[in-house]
Amino acid sequence: MIIVLRREATDDDVKAVVERLKSIGCEAHVSVGQTRTVIGAIGDRELIQQLPWEAMSGVEKAVPVLKPFKFVSRDFQSEDTIIEVRGVPIGDPGLCVVIAGPCAVESRDQLFRTAEAVKKAGARVLRGDAFKPRTSPYAFQGLAEAGLQLLAEAREEFDLPFVAEVLDPRDVDLVASYADILRVGTRNMSNFTLLQEVGRQPKPVQLKRGFTATLEEWLNAAEYIFKEGNHQVIMVERGIRTFDTAARNTLDVTAVPLLKQMSHLPVIVDPSHSGGRRELVLPLARAGVAAGADGIMVDVHPTPDTALVDGAQALLPSEFTELVVQVKRVAEAVDRTV
Amino acid sequence: MIIVLRREATDDDVKAVVERLKSIGCEAHVSVGQTRTVIGAIGDRELIQQLPWEAMSGVEKAVPVLKPFKFVSRDFQSEDTIIEVRGVPIGDPGLCVVIAGPCAVESRDQLFRTAEAVKKAGARVLRGDAFKPRTSPYAFQGLAEAGLQLLAEAREEFDLPFVAEVLDPRDVDLVASYADILRVGTRNMSNFTLLQEVGRQPKPVQLKRGFTATLEEWLNAAEYIFKEGNHQVIMVERGIRTFDTAARNTLDVTAVPLLKQMSHLPVIVDPSHSGGRRELVLPLARAGVAAGADGIMVDVHPTPDTALVDGAQALLPSEFTELVVQVKRVAEAVDRTV
Amino acid sequence: MIIVLRREATDDDVKAVVERLKSIGCEAHVSVGQTRTVIGAIGDRELIQQLPWEAMSGVEKAVPVLKPFKFVSRDFQSEDTIIEVRGVPIGDPGLCVVIAGPCAVESRDQLFRTAEAVKKAGARVLRGDAFKPRTSPYAFQGLAEAGLQLLAEAREEFDLPFVAEVLDPRDVDLVASYADILRVGTRNMSNFTLLQEVGRQPKPVQLKRGFTATLEEWLNAAEYIFKEGNHQVIMVERGIRTFDTAARNTLDVTAVPLLKQMSHLPVIVDPSHSGGRRELVLPLARAGVAAGADGIMVDVHPTPDTALVDGAQALLPSEFTELVVQVKRVAEAVDRTV
Amino acid sequence: MIIVLRREATDDDVKAVVERLKSIGCEAHVSVGQTRTVIGAIGDRELIQQLPWEAMSGVEKAVPVLKPFKFVSRDFQSEDTIIEVRGVPIGDPGLCVVIAGPCAVESRDQLFRTAEAVKKAGARVLRGDAFKPRTSPYAFQGLAEAGLQLLAEAREEFDLPFVAEVLDPRDVDLVASYADILRVGTRNMSNFTLLQEVGRQPKPVQLKRGFTATLEEWLNAAEYIFKEGNHQVIMVERGIRTFDTAARNTLDVTAVPLLKQMSHLPVIVDPSHSGGRRELVLPLARAGVAAGADGIMVDVHPTPDTALVDGAQALLPSEFTELVVQVKRVAEAVDRTV
Repeated sequence: MIIVLRREATDDDVKAVVERLKSIGCEAHVSVGQTRTVIGAIGDRELIQQLPWEAMSGVEKAVPVLKPFKFVSRDFQSEDTIIEVRGVPIGDPGLCVVIAGPCAVESRDQLFRTAEAVKKAGARVLRGDAFKPRTSPYAFQGLAEAGLQLLAEAREEFDLPFVAEVLDPRDVDLVASYADILRVGTRNMSNFTLLQEVGRQPKPVQLKRGFTATLEEWLNAAEYIFKEGNHQVIMVERGIRTFDTAARNTLDVTAVPLLKQMSHLPVIVDPSHSGGRRELVLPLARAGVAAGADGIMVDVHPTPDTALVDGAQALLPSEFTELVVQVKRVAEAVDRTV
Repeated sequence: MIIVLRREATDDDVKAVVERLKSIGCEAHVSVGQTRTVIGAIGDRELIQQLPWEAMSGVEKAVPVLKPFKFVSRDFQSEDTIIEVRGVPIGDPGLCVVIAGPCAVESRDQLFRTAEAVKKAGARVLRGDAFKPRTSPYAFQGLAEAGLQLLAEAREEFDLPFVAEVLDPRDVDLVASYADILRVGTRNMSNFTLLQEVGRQPKPVQLKRGFTATLEEWLNAAEYIFKEGNHQVIMVERGIRTFDTAARNTLDVTAVPLLKQMSHLPVIVDPSHSGGRRELVLPLARAGVAAGADGIMVDVHPTPDTALVDGAQALLPSEFTELVVQVKRVAEAVDRTV
Repeated sequence: MIIVLRREATDDDVKAVVERLKSIGCEAHVSVGQTRTVIGAIGDRELIQQLPWEAMSGVEKAVPVLKPFKFVSRDFQSEDTIIEVRGVPIGDPGLCVVIAGPCAVESRDQLFRTAEAVKKAGARVLRGDAFKPRTSPYAFQGLAEAGLQLLAEAREEFDLPFVAEVLDPRDVDLVASYADILRVGTRNMSNFTLLQEVGRQPKPVQLKRGFTATLEEWLNAAEYIFKEGNHQVIMVERGIRTFDTAARNTLDVTAVPLLKQMSHLPVIVDPSHSGGRRELVLPLARAGVAAGADGIMVDVHPTPDTALVDGAQALLPSEFTELVVQVKRVAEAVDRTV
Repeated sequence: MIIVLRREATDDDVKAVVERLKSIGCEAHVSVGQTRTVIGAIGDRELIQQLPWEAMSGVEKAVPVLKPFKFVSRDFQSEDTIIEVRGVPIGDPGLCVVIAGPCAVESRDQLFRTAEAVKKAGARVLRGDAFKPRTSPYAFQGLAEAGLQLLAEAREEFDLPFVAEVLDPRDVDLVASYADILRVGTRNMSNFTLLQEVGRQPKPVQLKRGFTATLEEWLNAAEYIFKEGNHQVIMVERGIRTFDTAARNTLDVTAVPLLKQMSHLPVIVDPSHSGGRRELVLPLARAGVAAGADGIMVDVHPTPDTALVDGAQALLPSEFTELVVQVKRVAEAVDRTV
């Protein structure tokens, strides 16, 4: 931690900060500049970060040198985390995993038609939600356990592990008893109760980025899961909120190499929820893979214009088949297979 | 809903939209312009808003005319909602309610010293949290039920109703059994599970705005609570995320008159969490009241530089006493008492 | 400047940074922590800030301790700057200056009717633009010199100094030959050519904040003007871009006390362009004054629904008269007269 | 234009809007819904867009159906614009143009070493600026005409057309007399004076996106140039401002397919200024090309750690050579050559 004093700070202010550091067993390096005194705090990171330095007299600001997260950082583990899900290695630097399926499970027919098509096109993991967080309380909220049962049947029928969202800490065991991967959605990235609960069960967890979360906040959320003992976290970039309204959100491809540098966790890109429009899915999927993502997650629906959730972004099965062909070419250009 | 077709839309595309509207019992007004056809959809708002118009062939965009929320809107209830909490009328246009206390309850001594001081200075409601959502999993998370017990004791001792945050849907009954008002925090504004749970119990609910939530998203969150039967919702503006880093967040005073126009709910301003710095609390409190807020909520701590949470923004009791004097003057200038 | 090295930085990397600092006559304070080495650079601020530290091997980031601006900072001048314009002291801590008039000058009749009304209501400075920057090239761009002539006539007729925008560095002399105060608009805050040109003439300059400018960027823009010799700069907060769309922009009242702390320059608030809607002008004007602004600038038009620019936000003369009455009450509550 | 009335609007309010539309020769389609009346305005787009509908009594909002720009839209010209610069076809769907060179021209040696290297590696256009807009007035501002002369010499020596920034409308003729392409930078995207001036000369213009500009605002800026008669505009996406601070800006790859859909203009991506860090240039360049960009523009410097501007993002010539090899692979995967 670097503690910058105000111009008008007194010697007593400096002394008080130094004493406070010593009192917690840390060292203080004092640098007196022309207009500001700066104190470097050296010692136990967590102890130092928790004290209210900016509340002390004469302190202008406290700038952390280290990140607040630990287990999820490259500093802690230098090799890539690879998460095996029924034989699919997510995070393998030679593979670009394709995850696909309907946004929400609506019926057996809708799910099975989609699952069959995405399996045939090359997807390795099925997506499909039974619990949907909706901005309006009047919108369709999902089939709940009945949806999970259909997903489990589709897994057997088409040999596809599946990922499903969990919204409520009380549903974690239920979803974990069916799904191969749990998902914590964008709106729940800072729902620490839910993060702790998914951290206490053994299934891998997809963690979507909050609408305007910084990478540091996102990795802090992953740290919550790690701290409870679950080290299988998959980061999902799904577009951030920016001022342009032509697309629903803005895919942050810069986050992909940055996360790879800051952390050892796998990173997946979701071009469907990012763009929110069918014609953007292919260019965004290509861009995400070119930026170094370990995979993509794509919404597919047999009849998008009757979809109960997010129809505008769902690809038809035939469009998805073509997407996989095109994404494979880009993946190969960055030394990955699909 | 206004449905705008693409320039290249065909007559069949237009016909399909019109048919779809008729099939759900709605009317379609077709306007053919020089380069675009526009279809006005007239009928049941919720039915219309749930269909995926933008997934239909030839549709460029669908622009809602009405807001997605209903019960919380001025359209639904034109008179102001006033929420009585142990005799304190929150939302009364003649009153500016002062809520104050420590950010987190740390000890009996810390809480009681603060409660005594804020009561004496003129606060009508006590704040103090027993459950804290922290960005880092390594930070202090609150005293839990022991904190609620201390708050309940302070209520009796100083005759101050209190508000406390709830983080976990499983704790709603516990918090509601002690607190006079529950709070849903910024990070949980879109935690729909928690919103539904606080909507199913009878205590009033403070709903803080998400870091980058639009007013419409915030009112949708309030609608979640209303829909479950709890109509006592207090909106709390606590600063939004913007690009400047000189203060922690940016108090959005424009939200105050806008919410008053769009909704009938009381609006409180939190100058402490907005600015994140002690010297900003007074100017922001004054600005919030001048903009028309029904009250303010302020962090006070007897020894901010030992505070376990947010010490940099906490006022000393003596500073708070002066703040109430100054805020009272501004309140009177906009025809409110404190 | 604090230079933080990467975890994997070598001793040679550290040595290279230290040598580089010595080579420009500066000192290096090296602190070796558990996982990072940090180097404090002490010496000539401008020399240090211009070197590309982050391009050096092993450097993770360089964190400035001091602000890049100098003359406009409180560090440089501790007393408030007060700018006298024909007897009106802008920046006087006891005064809240009211500036009012039409957004754009459209005709002699429109201007004179407005000027007469605002003078009578208590305005001390007239606003009115002859050059308008418009997002669309097809919109009305102003009356140019003819507009300035009308403004100069209105000044004599109603004894009101006036402020007018300048867009083009080639027009600076022209505008300065008529106006009492020049304005650099939001879209030109980073037009350094224009900033330099207004810095080379003697009239005071209003500098509007860019749509998403940080306070530091805004003060850097003021520094451009200062550096050319003109020390009469008035900062105008006019709302920033945020995600909500219910108002045009979001008035940043936190900027008022922050600017007052960081700088010695006067700060004016523009509630008309912030909100973009007539009914928001009063609450935003009150909030700005309560936050500590040295004045407000308000759009007034005799017939807003025929206005060629920004009619939706213009007050009628009668509404403006009432606004001054109300704003005066708030100003008095913060120890200012109007 | 769709004009939505307030719930409390009267019949007279509706009549007034309809009359106003008729008075300018337009038609009004009135749709009376359950809670709102909506009026569709049909007729001359520019006339309708300029009237202050939202200032009229009873009007809640006016929603434009058409974009405010015209000549730059796909509606106006359906085929792609291809701009030939000394034989290099920018905007050709089969080509990914590589533009490279130093951010700022510092010396003959620095420029020539860089130009030689980028030519050899496969660049088709040279970049290098003689006028630099700097946030701080104390930073290096460029070599001015001497820099342009060096660029012109390098063009002859290495057979590379070059692009250079222009900051001041008074310098447009000067820069145009040397450069093959002019650039309007990010900070000047809304400097309408400069846009008009570059629109009145015959050289192609690169138009960088403003830090937080919407696509519509950016295309409006291009329209300013078009309207003056210059139809050779190249859009340059260079990263937008978002909340994350790990990189300098956030490359908006979604803008690439969106611009291609909304407009016929070429789109170039600048991975160097987006990321601001050397190690991000390759992944961002790949992502931009994969998203469909017509080319990339990359900063190269023989000795980045002595660079006077933006050293942290400049590639070494050897790194650039490898970048071209890698980008070529991705370009081929989307059917382009380099």
